[in-house]
Amino acid sequence: MHILENGSVTSPQGFRAAGVTCGLKVTGKPDLALIVSDRPAVAAGVFTTNQVRAYNVDRNRRLLTLHHFPLSPNEGKGGRRGGRAILANSGNANTATGEQGRRDTEETAELVARELGLRPEEVFTSSTGVIGVPLDMSKVRAGIPAAVAALSPTGGIDAAIAIMTTDTRPKHIAVQVEVEGKVITLGGIAKGAGMIHPNMATLLAYITTDAAIAPALLQAATERAADLSFNMITVDGDTSTSDTCLVLANGAAGNLCWERTTDPDYAVFEAAFQHVFQHLAREIARDGEGATKLLTVAVRGAQTEADARQIARTVAGSNLFKAAVFGCDPNWGRIAAAAGRAGVAFDPHRLDVTMNGIPLLRLGEPLPFDRAAAVARLKEAAEVTVEVGLNAGDAGATAWGCDLTFDYVKINAEYFT
Amino acid sequence: MHILENGSVTSPQGFRAAGVTCGLKVTGKPDLALIVSDRPAVAAGVFTTNQVRAYNVDRNRRLLTLHHFPLSPNEGKGGRRGGRAILANSGNANTATGEQGRRDTEETAELVARELGLRPEEVFTSSTGVIGVPLDMSKVRAGIPAAVAALSPTGGIDAAIAIMTTDTRPKHIAVQVEVEGKVITLGGIAKGAGMIHPNMATLLAYITTDAAIAPALLQAATERAADLSFNMITVDGDTSTSDTCLVLANGAAGNLCWERTTDPDYAVFEAAFQHVFQHLAREIARDGEGATKLLTVAVRGAQTEADARQIARTVAGSNLFKAAVFGCDPNWGRIAAAAGRAGVAFDPHRLDVTMNGIPLLRLGEPLPFDRAAAVARLKEAAEVTVEVGLNAGDAGATAWGCDLTFDYVKINAEYFT
Repeated sequence: MHILENGSVTSPQGFRAAGVTCGLKVTGKPDLALIVSDRPAVAAGVFTTNQVRAYNVDRNRRLLTLHHFPLSPNEGKGGRRGGRAILANSGNANTATGEQGRRDTEETAELVARELGLRPEEVFTSSTGVIGVPLDMSKVRAGIPAAVAALSPTGGIDAAIAIMTTDTRPKHIAVQVEVEGKVITLGGIAKGAGMIHPNMATLLAYITTDAAIAPALLQAATERAADLSFNMITVDGDTSTSDTCLVLANGAAGNLCWERTTDPDYAVFEAAFQHVFQHLAREIARDGEGATKLLTVAVRGAQTEADARQIARTVAGSNLFKAAVFGCDPNWGRIAAAAGRAGVAFDPHRLDVTMNGIPLLRLGEPLPFDRAAAVARLKEAAEVTVEVGLNAGDAGATAWGCDLTFDYVKINAEYFT
Repeated sequence: MHILENGSVTSPQGFRAAGVTCGLKVTGKPDLALIVSDRPAVAAGVFTTNQVRAYNVDRNRRLLTLHHFPLSPNEGKGGRRGGRAILANSGNANTATGEQGRRDTEETAELVARELGLRPEEVFTSSTGVIGVPLDMSKVRAGIPAAVAALSPTGGIDAAIAIMTTDTRPKHIAVQVEVEGKVITLGGIAKGAGMIHPNMATLLAYITTDAAIAPALLQAATERAADLSFNMITVDGDTSTSDTCLVLANGAAGNLCWERTTDPDYAVFEAAFQHVFQHLAREIARDGEGATKLLTVAVRGAQTEADARQIARTVAGSNLFKAAVFGCDPNWGRIAAAAGRAGVAFDPHRLDVTMNGIPLLRLGEPLPFDRAAAVARLKEAAEVTVEVGLNAGDAGATAWGCDLTFDYVKINAEYFT
């Protein structure tokens, strides 16, 4: 697997993208991103489980059902149904905006379709930003033609910038693998926990590839990769109303279409696919609101992967432990306590805890360690790695998070100065 | 129901208490509390569900089983088994201290029993403070005789002070009801989210009453009252390794012993009992680490109480919403989003949200409101009340929490200055 420099969603063949300013953000920063596949693409996705959802989330899910069955990249060429475009705006989440919000989402998709000569059902949409405020459609209407005009085969990073909210930097990656003598490229962009005004932290991730892959397999791969990446990060435990991860695979690389996991070389693709997801997820955690450190929690020796996932996520999401990480405090007691309340039965007398390579608890007994040295090591570290061993089985899982800082509170306490 | 001024665990007849300094806290503040019933008392309790628990939690639970069955206050007098004393230290949680921790807990109970002429199994113990550090037993050994010497029928508030960690004030209450011409008194003390050094926020609550009540009924009443109070508060979502709520009922008031919920006047007692629990729980939430405001979340119109509880707790525990409360930001979008991720299915188009009496969302549609006035009202308010209506049924529940502030982070980020 080869990692491309400055890679993004436009690194795979047959994709163009743009990021422009339409004026939804009061700062005047880019706020409208467009990603287009030049040919129909197999689409897959995973979405927020929140009961209170943006209308576009439900619409995207419906489009996936529409696109999922009829399309196989190996059958015929051209004119088939498939995903063609993703339009995402920042600056307004268009969530909890009632009936008006639904109409605005439909109009947005229709405008993009008209500009690109597509049908509306080939256009996915996302919105992130303030919630409960109607979208200023005059700005969106003017912005869409500008975004279409700006589409470029090198525009992926512009798109990554245009979906940012309180993200401090764009997140993007592309990797290449070679199979059957063909180069297959996978690219992705994402945004994480951010806000401009009273709104939600929202995760948006768009992944493109020129691989040929059957719809059902792409959806399964997407769900598995999301489970190992976006579903294992936590910034503040609050699930957004708009979380969206969409994948477009347009088949331009010309590989023999993968239909099942046992197909030749599929494992090579899947490893690269999961790498893209995990890179973007880690970058989102690292750039969590107010974060100063990336937190990695690896649970080992669990009886089931579900147990390991639950404990890893709970430790990575513990406010008390996250505050300790901010304070460079090697507070293993908070790790053990968070593991203990994860809802998973385990024997605390078999619990091991290691932090940045320093064993702190072994089979339930505290170990002596050089506290001053551990604090000094934490102060220098941009990443903190916690290993939790249950000594109960062979399953494991890894979660990512960040520390809880003054800036998290500041960013989210709108009127406090 | 009559609320006593400066009431506490020593307000009911036949209880004495003390709070002394034995030196576990480096600050020299009181750190050893003792509560004693002059006669055997029916005991009940609820405890942390954390897998990683202090040994004393398991020991107390075992004692309850022991005391639960043989004792009925209406059978015989004197010499029966029952709960007689509760010793609690602050400054050290004696948790994750391995085999040494177990021995120290047993020795503590034995020392209290010897000083008071009791058997060790009549003595409950709790510890709160730093975890993973062995208890300094030389201090505890010296402190126990001092605590016994200090026992007083007016010592309840001293005990409330001695269990404090980062609590900014002691929590105590007593109420009286009259039944069958007898005055029955109920008292309680509690501590909340606090720490001195790397350790856990721990909830300790001790409730006493001179009512005569059968063990099974007292345990059921305790579980129900805890479900409506301590189990509905959240400061930071972290469940302690030591949470303990213990109740002693010594029968000194001389009422006809209640055996079942349908007994005459039992409802009067139960209402008073729940009032004591809820008062202490609210005071703990109000005094959460770094808190500036008490947050009350009432969910109405749910299909089941379990649904309502889950949503109320999730909203009260949302970091994003808690930060908005700190910022005096009437951010109903975060309320709706937290409700939506609570794991309860509901129709977002039937959702109502009201904040401090201002309707913000009605049947899923945002309502116009005077934002500046709402912010001003929040700035003045020491309490913020959120009402969430699901319009799906008749069940409801209330949860309490507090805002997320710079001071929460500061208190818990040990080395940050």
